[in-house]
Amino acid sequence: MSTDSLVPETRVLAIASHVVYGYVGNKMATLVMQLLGCDVAALNTVHFSNHTGYRQFKGTRATAEQITELYEGLCQSHLTDFDVMLSGYAPSAAAVEAVGAIGMDLQRKAEKNPGSFFWVLDPVMGDQGRLYVSNDVVPAYKTIIHHADLILPNQFEAETLSGIKITSLSTLAEAITAIHATYNVPHIIITSVDLSRFTQSPSSQTTTPPDSLTVIGSTTRSDGSPRLFRIDVPALDCYFSGTGDMFAALIVARLREAVFAADPQLRTTKSWVSPDEVKATDLPLARATVQVLASMHSVLEKTMEARDAELRAADTRGDEVLSEEERLKREHLRKSKAAEVRLVRNVQYLREPTVVFQAQEWRKEDLPAGSQ
Amino acid sequence: MSTDSLVPETRVLAIASHVVYGYVGNKMATLVMQLLGCDVAALNTVHFSNHTGYRQFKGTRATAEQITELYEGLCQSHLTDFDVMLSGYAPSAAAVEAVGAIGMDLQRKAEKNPGSFFWVLDPVMGDQGRLYVSNDVVPAYKTIIHHADLILPNQFEAETLSGIKITSLSTLAEAITAIHATYNVPHIIITSVDLSRFTQSPSSQTTTPPDSLTVIGSTTRSDGSPRLFRIDVPALDCYFSGTGDMFAALIVARLREAVFAADPQLRTTKSWVSPDEVKATDLPLARATVQVLASMHSVLEKTMEARDAELRAADTRGDEVLSEEERLKREHLRKSKAAEVRLVRNVQYLREPTVVFQAQEWRKEDLPAGSQ
Repeated sequence: MSTDSLVPETRVLAIASHVVYGYVGNKMATLVMQLLGCDVAALNTVHFSNHTGYRQFKGTRATAEQITELYEGLCQSHLTDFDVMLSGYAPSAAAVEAVGAIGMDLQRKAEKNPGSFFWVLDPVMGDQGRLYVSNDVVPAYKTIIHHADLILPNQFEAETLSGIKITSLSTLAEAITAIHATYNVPHIIITSVDLSRFTQSPSSQTTTPPDSLTVIGSTTRSDGSPRLFRIDVPALDCYFSGTGDMFAALIVARLREAVFAADPQLRTTKSWVSPDEVKATDLPLARATVQVLASMHSVLEKTMEARDAELRAADTRGDEVLSEEERLKREHLRKSKAAEVRLVRNVQYLREPTVVFQAQEWRKEDLPAGSQ
Repeated sequence: MSTDSLVPETRVLAIASHVVYGYVGNKMATLVMQLLGCDVAALNTVHFSNHTGYRQFKGTRATAEQITELYEGLCQSHLTDFDVMLSGYAPSAAAVEAVGAIGMDLQRKAEKNPGSFFWVLDPVMGDQGRLYVSNDVVPAYKTIIHHADLILPNQFEAETLSGIKITSLSTLAEAITAIHATYNVPHIIITSVDLSRFTQSPSSQTTTPPDSLTVIGSTTRSDGSPRLFRIDVPALDCYFSGTGDMFAALIVARLREAVFAADPQLRTTKSWVSPDEVKATDLPLARATVQVLASMHSVLEKTMEARDAELRAADTRGDEVLSEEERLKREHLRKSKAAEVRLVRNVQYLREPTVVFQAQEWRKEDLPAGSQ
């Protein structure tokens, strides 16, 4: 493996969950960033046996005090020279606040050198219309997001943060505009929107192929208006846990790479916000997202193949003696295990993605008449 | 990165310490095995901010109950199909026993398929003549080691386990023989012995170059006698933390590779013990160790270069206002940080080691007269 395909040297503090078995949270994000050449400090907010999608797990959650104490351990030994912080799941409102305080402290330490520290925040709160954290986590995120440079909500989290129900392309644009404005966050990516559920005009430029997911991103202009781009990717017929963490880890590495490839002034600009004349599709955020989605699509395709092979080979003879309920549970566990993302044997797709999905600029006038 | 240079697919359960910053314990071992293509489940026995060589750290230790509970979490979801277990530091005698119970349970699950499960145990107790665990950890290890397939003591730990003070080549051979016999452990590697401190006959075959370290390994024959090999490697003028964990992780991957490259019968033989006619230097253990030491030497050389560059570039202006005690502490912290092993940018040395140190067979008659 040559070092040519590594991203620029990047020191990351990753704060998220740890699972013994499988790949979600920091177990996913840390490895993905390491495989791309980043030096990762991993502060784990929970220590579970496996991800919660199995519907059963054992383990412990870190308290806010434990998270803070670990960070104090880094501070006292001068181990805080991070270029990027990636924060994901935290198990309580107090833990979210503790993570927020770490982000703010690192920002304060870097404030004399604009662009030398960048905070990517994944506001893990829920999915598919449902919160899976306690209610008081929402206001905790609403407070700390003001300090993040890039946030990565899914559709439900974007609705929660903006207060706007996303039912059309125009409400999607409104939600992003509102998040930029309300929280002063310079970069946003909404990591999966199912546009095919929206009413579409057949003549529209933005018609989405069926069975595709859309990723929408934006970097603000100096007047606060969004610079929107979209990328459509085919949806795979399988639910994988940890894909949000994989996206976040890849975007850390690829965004830094894209910023280093841009005008040298950008990397010393606060929050890496490109000048107004840079088109949406030329934004480092858009260029990075294109790379990220290419990697993800290949790794998930390989995972699906491996999953199918594992399920075909599974020894299910013992199932016959089980009750119907036990048999269904056993089957769910077997499918959950088989769907664990396959990383270690598919490194080439992370390192050298084959780009097939391109970013499109997305302007107000592209919106179909019916959705405005 | 092609998949050609990956080791055979291997599912590992790694039980050791986790540090947020830097590379020791599971933070080192997990990444090293992953980079070689192993799928690693990581059960962390402590969660510290940094390694203890900094002389200050914060964080928490897992209790024996927490370790056991995490394993129960794996069992209840059928996530225990491991090929190898690698166990390292555990923070108490009860934790060592809990780890031992996990190893034995995995062995029991695999007993119908000899060779399908292999336990590598690093009996982390101390170094340089000094225990750094509490006294009751020693008998805990003495109990569980009976069940391990390969143990990786350093010189001090080999002395502790054998009850034999290693002061010469012949006492070294005695210690290994005693460990094989007392604990019924089929494979041993003593990971670093400074032979140059022993009296040597100048005419001896076993004269060790000054400034070199020797790694001694052995796989038992069917009569219980050791099959000894040795590999001399130049010592680097720097102390690195985590090298024992790096050795352990590399040997897991390379031993499995060497076993897969040997006679196909070997991998279905209990504990992968080669037939008596296999010479010491042809043992998979010896072949693996040669690869491991080549990788380690290159990575540590690169680490030393990076350390020196980091220390040269360090901003020490703030030191002037410190007291002498504070200045020395600051310098120690700076050196500890600079000596963190550089893994993520040096993957090629792990993946494609250039072998320069060869294993030599080591027989009783090779021992210098003076040391017998």
